[in-house]
Amino acid sequence: MSDPPERSASDPDEEIMGATYRALREHGYADLTIKQIADEYGKSTAAVHYHYDTKEELLAAFLDFILDQFVQTIHEVETTNPERRLELLLDQLLLAPEDHYDLSIALLEMRSQAPYEAAFAERFRQNDEYVRYMLRTVIDDGIGAGVFVDVDAEHAASALMTIVDGARTRAVVLDDLDALETARRAADEYVDAVLREDT
Amino acid sequence: MSDPPERSASDPDEEIMGATYRALREHGYADLTIKQIADEYGKSTAAVHYHYDTKEELLAAFLDFILDQFVQTIHEVETTNPERRLELLLDQLLLAPEDHYDLSIALLEMRSQAPYEAAFAERFRQNDEYVRYMLRTVIDDGIGAGVFVDVDAEHAASALMTIVDGARTRAVVLDDLDALETARRAADEYVDAVLREDT
Repeated sequence: MSDPPERSASDPDEEIMGATYRALREHGYADLTIKQIADEYGKSTAAVHYHYDTKEELLAAFLDFILDQFVQTIHEVETTNPERRLELLLDQLLLAPEDHYDLSIALLEMRSQAPYEAAFAERFRQNDEYVRYMLRTVIDDGIGAGVFVDVDAEHAASALMTIVDGARTRAVVLDDLDALETARRAADEYVDAVLREDT
Repeated sequence: MSDPPERSASDPDEEIMGATYRALREHGYADLTIKQIADEYGKSTAAVHYHYDTKEELLAAFLDFILDQFVQTIHEVETTNPERRLELLLDQLLLAPEDHYDLSIALLEMRSQAPYEAAFAERFRQNDEYVRYMLRTVIDDGIGAGVFVDVDAEHAASALMTIVDGARTRAVVLDDLDALETARRAADEYVDAVLREDT
């Protein structure tokens, strides 16, 4: 088993991260200004710039921050049963974003800027590598335990992430929260069909 | 069988559409100006504005234009064998975009603006409805012909479009053209597992 992929280390100011979260949800990415973040922070733009030189630098730190939060959520999953663990992982990835739907909109905007913003591209790549590593590990564990058939775990993890990313895009572009449910069902069908022994 | 969904009718100027295509590929969406499109068109901005009042109106017509092109490509598929037709449809949807990768970047930017641009949202919704209708129809034909099992064709079509949209997003965000191949393989696995009789 290979080590988990490296991730950018940063020690963000939690209050600024919270302010960024609220500002992104309210204003979206394209129109976001440091002033709006400072307003949510309750301090001056100079106070924000003391920590981050540019908006892009701040938003890159924000991407690190939400990935860390996601990683913590995953680590709190306590079961070691591979089948159950894979289910819970997919639940986390395809959670109905009712309470953070506005953030999904801002995140798709930032995703679409990855070809132009190297710091964003780097974070999205690291995020994807990390989650695929988690999926691959649980699939490999399931193969070792004899509950999954001996598939190409790397491909299966990428296929599941394709379903996850499709759902995230569709939820925003088509303004359709059912896209998450459809994807959760498709992911189950995929796991049943590709990973389980014919029964 | 229901009728195909309605699509926006427009009679775009082919030369302006070609100019828009080239300008989008070169400059992306966020920085695109009417001036850049006019330069590609070889005429003045006034000549562009004679046809389209705003950049958004022009780009909405452009989305109609590329959907029409896609629909024509699909109609040129001559086989009526449902299994083969579904394969060809998935090939079209997950074509390696080497020759129009830059357009994929601009399209993801436009997708991410759907929550803010009603005209874009409308086109992406119509596009998605139309393609899902095509997928559903061929799946229903296959069920009728006894080559596919009696599945929920509506859900299967949505699941396949989730894989397609995931691949399109991943190709751009992760700068990874293999994402299309991975998705093509995942779509085949899904079709094999969910639509075919156990053999």
